[in-house]
Amino acid sequence: MKPTIPSGTRDFSPKEMVKRNFILDTIKKVFVKYGYEQIETPAMENLTTLEGKYGEEGDRLLYRILNSGPIVEGIRGQKTEVSLSDLTEKGLRYDLTVPFARYTVMHRNDITFPFKRFQIQPVWRADRPQKGRYREFFQCDADVIGSDSLMNEVELVQIVGEAYALLGIKVVIKVNNRKILSGIADAIGEKDKIVDITTAIDKIDKIGIDGVNKELITKGIGETTLKKIQPLLEFKGTNTKKLDILENLIGNTTDGKQGLDEIKFLLNTTQNCELDITLARGLNYYTGTIIEVKATEGTFTSSICGGGRYDDLTGVFGLPNTSGVGVSFGIDRIYDVMNELNLFEKLGLKSSLTKVLLTHFGEKEREYCLKLASELRKNDINTELYPDLTKKIAKQFDYANSKGIPYVIVIGGDEMSSGELTIKDMSSGTQEKMKINQVIDKLKK
Amino acid sequence: MKPTIPSGTRDFSPKEMVKRNFILDTIKKVFVKYGYEQIETPAMENLTTLEGKYGEEGDRLLYRILNSGPIVEGIRGQKTEVSLSDLTEKGLRYDLTVPFARYTVMHRNDITFPFKRFQIQPVWRADRPQKGRYREFFQCDADVIGSDSLMNEVELVQIVGEAYALLGIKVVIKVNNRKILSGIADAIGEKDKIVDITTAIDKIDKIGIDGVNKELITKGIGETTLKKIQPLLEFKGTNTKKLDILENLIGNTTDGKQGLDEIKFLLNTTQNCELDITLARGLNYYTGTIIEVKATEGTFTSSICGGGRYDDLTGVFGLPNTSGVGVSFGIDRIYDVMNELNLFEKLGLKSSLTKVLLTHFGEKEREYCLKLASELRKNDINTELYPDLTKKIAKQFDYANSKGIPYVIVIGGDEMSSGELTIKDMSSGTQEKMKINQVIDKLKK
Repeated sequence: MKPTIPSGTRDFSPKEMVKRNFILDTIKKVFVKYGYEQIETPAMENLTTLEGKYGEEGDRLLYRILNSGPIVEGIRGQKTEVSLSDLTEKGLRYDLTVPFARYTVMHRNDITFPFKRFQIQPVWRADRPQKGRYREFFQCDADVIGSDSLMNEVELVQIVGEAYALLGIKVVIKVNNRKILSGIADAIGEKDKIVDITTAIDKIDKIGIDGVNKELITKGIGETTLKKIQPLLEFKGTNTKKLDILENLIGNTTDGKQGLDEIKFLLNTTQNCELDITLARGLNYYTGTIIEVKATEGTFTSSICGGGRYDDLTGVFGLPNTSGVGVSFGIDRIYDVMNELNLFEKLGLKSSLTKVLLTHFGEKEREYCLKLASELRKNDINTELYPDLTKKIAKQFDYANSKGIPYVIVIGGDEMSSGELTIKDMSSGTQEKMKINQVIDKLKK
Repeated sequence: MKPTIPSGTRDFSPKEMVKRNFILDTIKKVFVKYGYEQIETPAMENLTTLEGKYGEEGDRLLYRILNSGPIVEGIRGQKTEVSLSDLTEKGLRYDLTVPFARYTVMHRNDITFPFKRFQIQPVWRADRPQKGRYREFFQCDADVIGSDSLMNEVELVQIVGEAYALLGIKVVIKVNNRKILSGIADAIGEKDKIVDITTAIDKIDKIGIDGVNKELITKGIGETTLKKIQPLLEFKGTNTKKLDILENLIGNTTDGKQGLDEIKFLLNTTQNCELDITLARGLNYYTGTIIEVKATEGTFTSSICGGGRYDDLTGVFGLPNTSGVGVSFGIDRIYDVMNELNLFEKLGLKSSLTKVLLTHFGEKEREYCLKLASELRKNDINTELYPDLTKKIAKQFDYANSKGIPYVIVIGGDEMSSGELTIKDMSSGTQEKMKINQVIDKLKK
């Protein structure tokens, strides 16, 4: 009879919420500092909005809502013959990008363009749950729509840098440009094989140069072409050195030249990015800049933030030729990285936001505590008062300990008559006697 | 082809989000100041958790999620005979109370009791949408579970008072106690008619004393009993006066005496509550204190916060005899009240969180702006840089105006060579010339 929750979903405990809120508040503050504005969209969208936007697999992974009304009421009582369209016309949000596109088109007359929006909400996918993959998880996206200026890319890179610095995570920000990839395919005379080539090069860390060459041969790449690609496979060193190699290879192609101009602007204006031509990230989606962020410490090798520019996000909803660029922070992975590296502790985050617990030996003492609590709270000190009457002071201390409350004040007859309060530091065990004003000064720090 | 969202759901625009976040952040800060800890639960719960908890109507209004898997895949292609239990085993959260009870039982071994939790999440009900009633809306609840101390009621009343004071809403906090209502029914010898009597008295504002008496007669209340109730119908004046009347009527009944003791403790310890014996709020749910808050200005007469004590919230999930008490803030109504009374403006809330927009006449100027923006952001000043290159300065000013950005700085050749920046106050139209340090001082205020 013990209750459970659906597979792939999670409860977040108070201690987890303190950490998650810290991450989200930090990122949100950076978004706001750069002028991004928050929106929220409904959990349920019409299936006409969602279907066909995420490929065949995406359609299968959509959570659909049963209609209310006669048909569903009918099958409540008895088996009934129905088709899917009788049963459902709404689905749960699958990502934040499609709802953002839908929002932009629907409210285009009220929006000031360029529209810089951020959005932090859960999404749902009926995927097979496994370690680190959930059926309900939060996405945290910032996008600009209606401006093709590279200044947006520059600011997004700055946002990423600033957010991870505040979270204490050391990262590498890798950038690429879809037009560089097109330029490569063009320069070697294999424009139609761009996906094969990129997919192969993308595996170089795992299978090595020889492996990549083998794969390229099986995809039908000839000897001469293979030779041209070799400098890219040994693609190491500074951004300047890499740009030189690319300049030689693709500087004469239309796409290549434009991609190089764009990436040079971004690299020169930001100075904390690393050019990585193996970066593709859903090649058929991005049309310009591609961004990916990885932690450089710890055991988590997957990306903790990614994004890029897409040229026609809103066309499918009837607003064509609107360029957008954005990044998405991977909240669950950031949480895992910070936990592994003890960053929450290093940043001084306490597991409880309460600063002090007031304990007591009886009814009069508790009444005294209530006045004391008001005084402390008036000074913006998060304060708890043990609510139950109990002579067992140890029980009250246990409460503070298991919640992680750093200080405890005990009120007995002596304290009430003298106004000298005993405050105990729960981590060091040391006790001090002081007046209420000194307590306030101590805890306000 | 214009996209829409499901009936009864809402998009929240940036300007609405600024106001909603202000409300939620304010309430949240107060919860935390009193030691309440946040939890979050999944949007989807098992139907076994949800069904049977909200009455027959509630079951009908639950949103059910279609299972994924063979049966649903089957009906995708063709009409198929199915029953409801084949199709669905999960539903969307209908309120925050049942998930909280489920959470408490499921995690009882990890929870420190008394457990003071708050939770701010959307809930979904397949109700007929109408003005002020939505199919997706936020609930904002604080509850303590595992303590029957009235000190919890006292603190909840303090939380309510403090939150509304910070929001600038003048309110009356009405309290009652279910045991007083039982005592009344007992004292007049009509213990089984408690619901009829309370329902009738509850209508006194609308139908007057005569109306109440008529209704009581139709419910089978006799002449003698009716006479005993009359003092309650003329129940006006100070709390002390009301308590005197009640003392006479119900002071000798078991429930009545206990209810009076409890309400006296609450009234004396808090001092900002008004005793209102017509307050019932789901009589079959609360077992002790009942709380309701109404705004005393503006045209919104419905309650903007309510709550009370319930003796057995978790019994249905296998953890009996656990007393709880809580309050729920009506976020949508608070929003409406604050809008109507212009409280957001009175509290100085700006429609944009951005402080200043940097505008420019060309590429070099924009580059200068980027350095300026970094300098301002380093000082925690929320700054925007117009991203596109355009000579039309008016267009850039329009952007600031429609977003509600209060200051604009224009960068041209003169500003770049002299370092004297022109800053324009967009509401007054006045311009000042100053160095970057003075700008920082001005905007940091």
